[in-house]
Amino acid sequence: MVVRENFENSLQELQTKMTEMGELAISSLEKAFTAFKTQDIELALRVIEEDNEIDDLEEEINQFAIWLTVKEQPVARDLRKIIGAIKISSEIERIADFGVNIAKSAIKIGSEHSLISLTQLESMKDACINMLQKALQSFIDENIVLAKEVGDMDDVVDEYSNETYKQLTTYLSEHPEETNQLVQLLFINRYLERTADHITNIAESAAYLIKGRRYDLN
Amino acid sequence: MVVRENFENSLQELQTKMTEMGELAISSLEKAFTAFKTQDIELALRVIEEDNEIDDLEEEINQFAIWLTVKEQPVARDLRKIIGAIKISSEIERIADFGVNIAKSAIKIGSEHSLISLTQLESMKDACINMLQKALQSFIDENIVLAKEVGDMDDVVDEYSNETYKQLTTYLSEHPEETNQLVQLLFINRYLERTADHITNIAESAAYLIKGRRYDLN
Repeated sequence: MVVRENFENSLQELQTKMTEMGELAISSLEKAFTAFKTQDIELALRVIEEDNEIDDLEEEINQFAIWLTVKEQPVARDLRKIIGAIKISSEIERIADFGVNIAKSAIKIGSEHSLISLTQLESMKDACINMLQKALQSFIDENIVLAKEVGDMDDVVDEYSNETYKQLTTYLSEHPEETNQLVQLLFINRYLERTADHITNIAESAAYLIKGRRYDLN
Repeated sequence: MVVRENFENSLQELQTKMTEMGELAISSLEKAFTAFKTQDIELALRVIEEDNEIDDLEEEINQFAIWLTVKEQPVARDLRKIIGAIKISSEIERIADFGVNIAKSAIKIGSEHSLISLTQLESMKDACINMLQKALQSFIDENIVLAKEVGDMDDVVDEYSNETYKQLTTYLSEHPEETNQLVQLLFINRYLERTADHITNIAESAAYLIKGRRYDLN
């Protein structure tokens, strides 16, 4: 029983690290977005710098998960939980990379007046953050309903993204003098659409943990 | 001795799967690029469909690597090799995703006359394929010289990418009627630049295997 208890504690620790990583990714997206909206170059640089922390945490989770696998030789749901942690931390790292990309876009546009209000990007960012929280909760609580909600929200983000693409390209063909910023906004639109895809992958990992078979929530 | 031989065979099998995955990713990039250049929608659809094969192979490599870790409890270089395989297969999967993205861009532009000759994109694609072959060879042969060459080539791709970005945005501000295709070309420029980054990560995994410490080849 003590052995099992130790193992449960280790799984708990793994989840704590995942939650921490998720919070850092959310903070990266929020800060990068603010940096873009307010043309705050210093904040953008900080997002890029702080990404190292997220990379280190992913490395830590991987090492810990491998150590746990070698030590405990887990099977079934326990093994799925550990593999899930490895996969999910890799998805979170990718999401945080999009935060870095948005920060780099902020630096590229510099001090031009922001055209972000032309788009649905802010709503997309908010939806992504909400989705990420739900997806991680779904894995930790083994709650399939939350995982399915994430899949539904991905459709909403895709709709926003299509709409934003049309708005921006139409505006671009009428205002070629704004090319620089509009191209960066098109990139951000793409990053957020991909962010939602990666979060959906996290929800699929949660569904795999819970049900023991692959789900397509997309 | 027989145990060691079995383990060596298993590592060999892991590398064979990685090589296969690498070849599929290269084929995905080549086909997607041809589809874009020649406006071949059917070929583009095939690239998207065939991506499942690459995803399955990644899953197979992960399962095999975990099974091998649990069974053999490897340490030092052996463990680094197995973890390297997991990391590299995840990078290859991301690279193949860019192939899918290019294929989707091909579908989006449909039958417009190709403006790709305005750019360095073809050279970037060729450089990426060359880099990927070198990076995988570097891991398999434990050849640090090849890994460093990949890092140097990444700088070349970055230069091409900056140049292409400028060419395309300048052309775009003068030809707003071509917005649709030019935006897709800007995306492809971004995908290829990121592809080279992911290949550099593979070379860094190879360097870590060989030297036992982290290298920054970027």
